[in-house]
Amino acid sequence: MTTPVKPTQHPALAIARELAGEFALTAVERDERGGTPKAERDALRNSGLLSLTIPTAYGGQGASWRETFEVVREFARVDSSLAHVFGFHHLMLATVRLFARPDQWQPWFEQTARKQWFWGNALNPLDTRTQVKHFDGWCEFSGQKSFCSGASDSEMLIASAVDERAGGKLLIAAIPSARTGITLHNDWNNIGQRQTDSGSATFERVRVERDELLLDPGPLSTPFAALRPLIAQLHFANLFLGIAEGAFAEARQYSLKESRPWFRSSAAQVSEDPYVLRHYGEFWVGLESMRLLIERAADQLDSAWAKEHALTAEERGDLALAIGTAKVAATRQGLDICNRVFEVTGARATHASLRFDRHWRNLRTQTLHDPVDYRIHELGEWALSGKRPTPSFYS
Amino acid sequence: MTTPVKPTQHPALAIARELAGEFALTAVERDERGGTPKAERDALRNSGLLSLTIPTAYGGQGASWRETFEVVREFARVDSSLAHVFGFHHLMLATVRLFARPDQWQPWFEQTARKQWFWGNALNPLDTRTQVKHFDGWCEFSGQKSFCSGASDSEMLIASAVDERAGGKLLIAAIPSARTGITLHNDWNNIGQRQTDSGSATFERVRVERDELLLDPGPLSTPFAALRPLIAQLHFANLFLGIAEGAFAEARQYSLKESRPWFRSSAAQVSEDPYVLRHYGEFWVGLESMRLLIERAADQLDSAWAKEHALTAEERGDLALAIGTAKVAATRQGLDICNRVFEVTGARATHASLRFDRHWRNLRTQTLHDPVDYRIHELGEWALSGKRPTPSFYS
Amino acid sequence: MTTPVKPTQHPALAIARELAGEFALTAVERDERGGTPKAERDALRNSGLLSLTIPTAYGGQGASWRETFEVVREFARVDSSLAHVFGFHHLMLATVRLFARPDQWQPWFEQTARKQWFWGNALNPLDTRTQVKHFDGWCEFSGQKSFCSGASDSEMLIASAVDERAGGKLLIAAIPSARTGITLHNDWNNIGQRQTDSGSATFERVRVERDELLLDPGPLSTPFAALRPLIAQLHFANLFLGIAEGAFAEARQYSLKESRPWFRSSAAQVSEDPYVLRHYGEFWVGLESMRLLIERAADQLDSAWAKEHALTAEERGDLALAIGTAKVAATRQGLDICNRVFEVTGARATHASLRFDRHWRNLRTQTLHDPVDYRIHELGEWALSGKRPTPSFYS
Amino acid sequence: MTTPVKPTQHPALAIARELAGEFALTAVERDERGGTPKAERDALRNSGLLSLTIPTAYGGQGASWRETFEVVREFARVDSSLAHVFGFHHLMLATVRLFARPDQWQPWFEQTARKQWFWGNALNPLDTRTQVKHFDGWCEFSGQKSFCSGASDSEMLIASAVDERAGGKLLIAAIPSARTGITLHNDWNNIGQRQTDSGSATFERVRVERDELLLDPGPLSTPFAALRPLIAQLHFANLFLGIAEGAFAEARQYSLKESRPWFRSSAAQVSEDPYVLRHYGEFWVGLESMRLLIERAADQLDSAWAKEHALTAEERGDLALAIGTAKVAATRQGLDICNRVFEVTGARATHASLRFDRHWRNLRTQTLHDPVDYRIHELGEWALSGKRPTPSFYS
Repeated sequence: MTTPVKPTQHPALAIARELAGEFALTAVERDERGGTPKAERDALRNSGLLSLTIPTAYGGQGASWRETFEVVREFARVDSSLAHVFGFHHLMLATVRLFARPDQWQPWFEQTARKQWFWGNALNPLDTRTQVKHFDGWCEFSGQKSFCSGASDSEMLIASAVDERAGGKLLIAAIPSARTGITLHNDWNNIGQRQTDSGSATFERVRVERDELLLDPGPLSTPFAALRPLIAQLHFANLFLGIAEGAFAEARQYSLKESRPWFRSSAAQVSEDPYVLRHYGEFWVGLESMRLLIERAADQLDSAWAKEHALTAEERGDLALAIGTAKVAATRQGLDICNRVFEVTGARATHASLRFDRHWRNLRTQTLHDPVDYRIHELGEWALSGKRPTPSFYS
Repeated sequence: MTTPVKPTQHPALAIARELAGEFALTAVERDERGGTPKAERDALRNSGLLSLTIPTAYGGQGASWRETFEVVREFARVDSSLAHVFGFHHLMLATVRLFARPDQWQPWFEQTARKQWFWGNALNPLDTRTQVKHFDGWCEFSGQKSFCSGASDSEMLIASAVDERAGGKLLIAAIPSARTGITLHNDWNNIGQRQTDSGSATFERVRVERDELLLDPGPLSTPFAALRPLIAQLHFANLFLGIAEGAFAEARQYSLKESRPWFRSSAAQVSEDPYVLRHYGEFWVGLESMRLLIERAADQLDSAWAKEHALTAEERGDLALAIGTAKVAATRQGLDICNRVFEVTGARATHASLRFDRHWRNLRTQTLHDPVDYRIHELGEWALSGKRPTPSFYS
Repeated sequence: MTTPVKPTQHPALAIARELAGEFALTAVERDERGGTPKAERDALRNSGLLSLTIPTAYGGQGASWRETFEVVREFARVDSSLAHVFGFHHLMLATVRLFARPDQWQPWFEQTARKQWFWGNALNPLDTRTQVKHFDGWCEFSGQKSFCSGASDSEMLIASAVDERAGGKLLIAAIPSARTGITLHNDWNNIGQRQTDSGSATFERVRVERDELLLDPGPLSTPFAALRPLIAQLHFANLFLGIAEGAFAEARQYSLKESRPWFRSSAAQVSEDPYVLRHYGEFWVGLESMRLLIERAADQLDSAWAKEHALTAEERGDLALAIGTAKVAATRQGLDICNRVFEVTGARATHASLRFDRHWRNLRTQTLHDPVDYRIHELGEWALSGKRPTPSFYS
Repeated sequence: MTTPVKPTQHPALAIARELAGEFALTAVERDERGGTPKAERDALRNSGLLSLTIPTAYGGQGASWRETFEVVREFARVDSSLAHVFGFHHLMLATVRLFARPDQWQPWFEQTARKQWFWGNALNPLDTRTQVKHFDGWCEFSGQKSFCSGASDSEMLIASAVDERAGGKLLIAAIPSARTGITLHNDWNNIGQRQTDSGSATFERVRVERDELLLDPGPLSTPFAALRPLIAQLHFANLFLGIAEGAFAEARQYSLKESRPWFRSSAAQVSEDPYVLRHYGEFWVGLESMRLLIERAADQLDSAWAKEHALTAEERGDLALAIGTAKVAATRQGLDICNRVFEVTGARATHASLRFDRHWRNLRTQTLHDPVDYRIHELGEWALSGKRPTPSFYS
């Protein structure tokens, strides 16, 4: 019931489905526990899916973004924490591809594919507490960084630091997570996305080589480089959709197998109750809208990605609008579904053993990454004045 | 701003745009006047667009449904009455194609293309006041029929009558509008869709030849024949979208050219007011959702149409779901936009000379054709139980 | 069904009900016609209701604001144009009471009660085209003024002009409508509130005596004087509620007497259809919320009014919040009801003879008087920061 | 900021506020822990508030329902589990008052006041697994019962059993919780309302004396007796409002003290951000609507309660409508607020240490007690057909 749109046929999807089936068995328990899902992260490593977006020339599977996001959704339906760190791993790979020179990202790609590296995030551009100090041919990162999703149990990190000498410019580096001076605090304990390890990191005079800095072309420097935040945003939209699809699927099973019509209902079975059907009908319209907006955006991203440096600012802007639209819809309709599914399952579905609230908690947590209000604002500037979003780490 | 999705390239679209430009000049005045838009109907005749869906083999333009609905939307943006009778004309042609034998519909198609016939509707299956009386080789239709959109100033009519002898079965015929005994009352005077001539007709012993009856395969008799109501429903969805796009476009021009920020606004111009932008952003998300749902459904209809008698009940059911989803979204988001645009234009946009309320009146009127509540009910049956809609004249 | 809250027992209410019954007979026709409802305005004069808010000491009926607004709602249910000019008449009386000296307003009150004067509005503070020129003991108003509700067929006008000499300060005067130099253009022709005569006026060197200026204490000069815009805002909220109640009542009659259940409904009668009941249930929650918010605000206004110059800024601010809350709720829930009633009546209720769309048109027009977005903004400042609205002509 | 409506002045409110202040200190921790809040229940015992609704003639405090629900809300703002068992305790007292003879309830009231008894619930009328067996002068209850809120750590229980001999009639008894044969399973472990002990009970041949059965007048036997479910429903509405007020208050503190404006905001402080203000403004309108609907209903309940056996079916029906309206509004607006507060606090407010999601979890859980859809259905029957709700254990 969840994928009326024809899925792509990349073989990775079958592997992802199998993995998702395994993740599902322990998702509830791991939601309670929190912490690092070490076994599942290793299963991801062993699955080969960490090289999904890496071109075959570098030992990867050469999947498109659309295919990659199908895998993200597959995971998100049962475990949105793993879906998030998986998607962010590929975002990190895209980051080096977009911000660095080929002689930098090519070996990283090749090694990632060969050694099944997991990449984590320590880039939060709004947290300016990590500073850079320059030396001859190298520099040092020192300070704190928050919201470092997937940094724990990673082999590589994308980290950022503020270069006060250069007027507060953000320097971004790709460095081994095990480098001396890096401490990951394993302090993520939030109401949702509990196994994303999105806690804080401390950098104490962490040495960063010149060749580890992503300077050429550098962050957001060209329309192509500026695809990076758009990939992040579309990743979120897919995550939101996957969560909503998971909540819907779980509610549906519960309605069909466990629920009984209310004693005032004219229906003999829940599946004939007019108000239950109304909710399901509205869920369907919401899900289908999200799916189409997201798939359109994914195809558009794949086209933009293929254009590389020929991508114009206008094309990049159009993609930003398509992705922004998808994300707003996924945020709102996803929250509506995750909140409302309880009305079609009834009171017994609140039993803690089901942790059926985790869909809402996960979605509520992740949708706060950046405010939906300002995404709508941006779409309004386009709709009214024809102004495309100005690239930033969030647009 | 209204068509970010890439339109098809059928030459008819350019013709439709030009016509729409002309219709726009008098749309406000004609909304006030009501009645039959004779000059505009003749312009449609002269444009050749009445043969748009007729295959080239019969002298038509062989357009796909997607292309045809693009024309419907083009008209609906400025004049949803003309859009409706235009779309219904093609629905009537589809009716004979789907319900009758080739030796019936082929000459009708050929003549329609050659003589620029306009087809009107007198089929309302819920109005059972017209009865049939059988004679040897022919029969007579007698009684009333309501909601006969586009019957006035038409050359051909699709009419229906109840066959009491056959247990209340609906007999459908294609007959010349000028036939003796048919009176069209020109009594449509409603709050919206004012030039659709959706009034009543009287049949007084109207002779119908056996060869004018659509009996083979007959109404809804096969999955392919049962495409008829789906074409009607998708026509409505396109009409709704077109109206919403028209309201949006008109509001946008007004905001940009006429509106000033409220004295409490922090913005120097309306285009920077946060609340105005919020409305526009939300309109955009609504419009884009509608557009994608509708285009997906149109493509799916074209595939189903091409399959003809090979179309399975399941495929027909999937199409019904795609169309139902699009129609629910178009109804709700369309009404929201047509109601809310006034909040971005301000009080002066209520001046009667603009008749800016016509978008809401048109949409409100046409969206009542059949209840959106039962469309959602149907989608709920699918979403919960995997049950596809049972074909009827509305599903 | 419309007044579960216990109405007050002022005898004026019975008179108003009788009048409303008469207005109802021609409301549809007059909505179509527009223009000045001379006969109905005269009926209002003859009813004595124009002295409703005038204290008995000056020959009036001494009604409270709550009682007065009950009359406004009574009218608004069937004819919101008359409700508006009636309410605005009393707002104009409040204006002289609040902005002028007793030796000014007392004779005006006395004469109004005795001669059944109708007061009209030419005050629009946002339209600064009318300027004042000072002479010795008198001055001249010259220029244009828009949105002059109820100015036509009035005996007295509240007019405003900008005093450039005093830095753009607004001077407000009470003058006979028939004074030389005043031209009322009878040019109101809008989509709703069609008989409010809210068109434009021209002042050509209109002489205004010093004693006709409302200078002591002057506009918004004290918390008590600053009740004026709040009375206007609460008048609007009552108008909106009355319109919604009228739409609801008319829909209900139609559902009970004319509508049939959809052929897919499991119900034998419309009154048992689950989706129809859902709409009515939601309408009820909306109406009841509006009613309570509005009545609470009316009682609070009556208390504030009774305090006169002892009214503190804080008390005035609390009242502004109560009224703002009521108005936001009435705007949103009213629009929802007026738009959605068609879904419980069905397509036939769009017949122009019913002009059932007039509720939406009237509400849509009048709700644009000032933007609901900025009323919500104000409530947000209170809810978040405890900041009460700054008095202005709109807050 | 949470009680603009003037609260009553019962001294119990001050005691409740102090207690609530204490509960607040550990509410987060206890939400995590679940189980029976023994210390807090004892604090309630010691506070004397368990005799709040007991007339002074029997040693109680003689509070009105309105006063009692103010205490419920006071608790619900910080700890909705305690608020629930506290309110249900008083509902159990009302149950004996309404269903039993004075010579039954008077001693129970007197003892409850004197010994600070806590009453728990084992009545769930939809769970028919507990059966009754009759003996001479006494009977036995045997079977299971679910959703027994507040049964753990109670002195008295209201229990029900199905009397098959009497055609499935529900027999209700008031019995000591410690009676032989009663096992309370302490198995409530749900996503919300985690310290309500709403788990299951087993009755193994529990002896029930004739004088412990509530037979005269018996359940729902008169309009007055039928107030019981209405008290339950209004209790829920107050609980929902209290939760929403608590979420609002906590969000407000967070916004003011912790949040910073988004980097794209034009505002220097969160308290000036237009979108943040919009959310707060909408929260305010929702809260005020709930408050007024609930207070109106509480006053109406107090009137009905005072009428005792003179209460007519019609008056009881009107009260049912007022309470139903309040509950629907509180359900919807409460969920909206508890879900949306995160958008005004931002991502950091998802930290698990705040357990800021508990408001949504508590509300989501408790709002499923009975389906809001059927409450709206009932209101629709009234709004459309003037039919008052038929008394049942839910209406």
